[in-house]
Amino acid sequence: MGGMLKPIVWTGEKVRLLDQTQLPRQTVYVDIADAVQMHDAIRRLVVRGAPAIGVAAGFGAYLGISRGKRVDEVCDYLATSRPTAVNLFWALDRVRKIGALGPSRVLDECLTMLAEMEATIQAIGEHGLSALEGCSNVLTHCNAGALAGTGALAPMLIGHERGRKFNVFVDETRPLLQGSRITAYELKESGVPVTLICDNMAAAVMAQKKVDACIVGADRIAANGDTANKIGTLSVAIAAKHFGVPFYVAAPVSTIDFACASGTGIPIEQRSADEVANFGAKPTAPEGVGVYNPAFDVTPAALITAIITENGVARPPFEQSLRSMMGR
Amino acid sequence: MGGMLKPIVWTGEKVRLLDQTQLPRQTVYVDIADAVQMHDAIRRLVVRGAPAIGVAAGFGAYLGISRGKRVDEVCDYLATSRPTAVNLFWALDRVRKIGALGPSRVLDECLTMLAEMEATIQAIGEHGLSALEGCSNVLTHCNAGALAGTGALAPMLIGHERGRKFNVFVDETRPLLQGSRITAYELKESGVPVTLICDNMAAAVMAQKKVDACIVGADRIAANGDTANKIGTLSVAIAAKHFGVPFYVAAPVSTIDFACASGTGIPIEQRSADEVANFGAKPTAPEGVGVYNPAFDVTPAALITAIITENGVARPPFEQSLRSMMGR
Repeated sequence: MGGMLKPIVWTGEKVRLLDQTQLPRQTVYVDIADAVQMHDAIRRLVVRGAPAIGVAAGFGAYLGISRGKRVDEVCDYLATSRPTAVNLFWALDRVRKIGALGPSRVLDECLTMLAEMEATIQAIGEHGLSALEGCSNVLTHCNAGALAGTGALAPMLIGHERGRKFNVFVDETRPLLQGSRITAYELKESGVPVTLICDNMAAAVMAQKKVDACIVGADRIAANGDTANKIGTLSVAIAAKHFGVPFYVAAPVSTIDFACASGTGIPIEQRSADEVANFGAKPTAPEGVGVYNPAFDVTPAALITAIITENGVARPPFEQSLRSMMGR
Repeated sequence: MGGMLKPIVWTGEKVRLLDQTQLPRQTVYVDIADAVQMHDAIRRLVVRGAPAIGVAAGFGAYLGISRGKRVDEVCDYLATSRPTAVNLFWALDRVRKIGALGPSRVLDECLTMLAEMEATIQAIGEHGLSALEGCSNVLTHCNAGALAGTGALAPMLIGHERGRKFNVFVDETRPLLQGSRITAYELKESGVPVTLICDNMAAAVMAQKKVDACIVGADRIAANGDTANKIGTLSVAIAAKHFGVPFYVAAPVSTIDFACASGTGIPIEQRSADEVANFGAKPTAPEGVGVYNPAFDVTPAALITAIITENGVARPPFEQSLRSMMGR
């Protein structure tokens, strides 16, 4: 992970989380001592991003088990903290499978998951840095950084450490502003130059030839390469195509869902109108106005230059190249 | 103007402005009695939108002149209220030219300007309604409505009064949220169904075939049809092109600048970083983060289906069709 910020650290006794609800203005760590605290931390988005949530939940299960809770009971309980997060169930399943072997074995499994997560970020960073050869000005959307337990920012973070010059345009990412709150923080803390923009400025910045490449994360990648990611990703991808700017998706192979043939099979979560019609407690729209607030959109494979994973860089046609990523 | 909200009403004694700083939650009218109050109202964005600012400034000049102020003095003073608004200078020039004829003649001129503004909105609405034949779901960006003294919302407002079914997707329009604060209010007050979205959702909504047409205003239109409008317009236009959705610009012919051959000649105002890095008083980004905050972008003519003016609908090639609009 080099100089990257770590969302989760095992202190030897507790799980130290960087409290992402306090970003961007405060860097606060919270020490989690039991499963109830971890459930609360996941629910309140103290820790966020699918891979990081999974690892955190695993540690939460360990903390419960080490205090005498039954494996299934604590895993079932933690599974309710963010019901739609696939990595959450996956990590808890890993714990369930070896739970009977005792707390010490569960802790080992959690430390392994954490190390795997960090190694994945590092490997995505290395492959991404190669893919971004010759690119200095990179645009990203939302937060798929180390703080989310994933690698879309890793190429720039690793490259910056090695003296590569990067400037990253960061979409603020309405409605929840993960770009301005988290990505801008993560890059700035690591010394990478950041230019924050509103989401609707991405096309204008590309029109001015200020962007050499776009790189985003993924929530789910279908077998054909269609990619579900934070709402607004599609808009960036269309603008990139229009201006001939390469558009990269960077995500762990665990994000690829071969059971899902194409993007039409990916369900899109609808979220509360309040997120769009208010800012914090302040109303920004007429009372009772109709709102459409999808959490994700699907970027068709045809708009994606390459998909960067920890196992290498998959290029079109993705049906073949994504499968070859799994074999490695 | 039919059932449309009126930003400016002459009461016979004072100028009644709908206080747009109180939107979307409060409908408050303020009565302006002298030039100083009008200067303050324009400066504070109580009244906004280039055409409305021009008319308001004209009335401000009348109020000053009727209280014995010198014509040039009061016009010079009001010209400082929003230094970059072309319509402001244009309206004050009209007052200057007839100022020597006395307050009563100046008032007549102001009432004429107000009537012209309202007639322009109505005519853009009529032409727009024809252009939008068969379209029910329309997406708009920023606010180019009657409250701004212009006509991009007029087709839907007039159509709704006549029983045409419209649903308008309204981009919230970061950073200043003119879409959620003003457009959503204006449409909702007139009973037109509104669906508010974040700017980054426009492409996703189009991908779902929920949009039949886009319609936006213009700050300046070059002779070749390239159009400067609120930042984010370009992004909408590119997505519309990608999905085969017609993209209309609706603006008075006074917006067409034949001295400007193409969009590259249009200067783009850069605004304060605070607008992007904060929301109201609340910081949303790391302190001192780099920000790029252009107020406008330029949509190339090739992305524009037609330009709707009070004199008719101009279609490509715009070099010819825009000139023919002026002749009518």
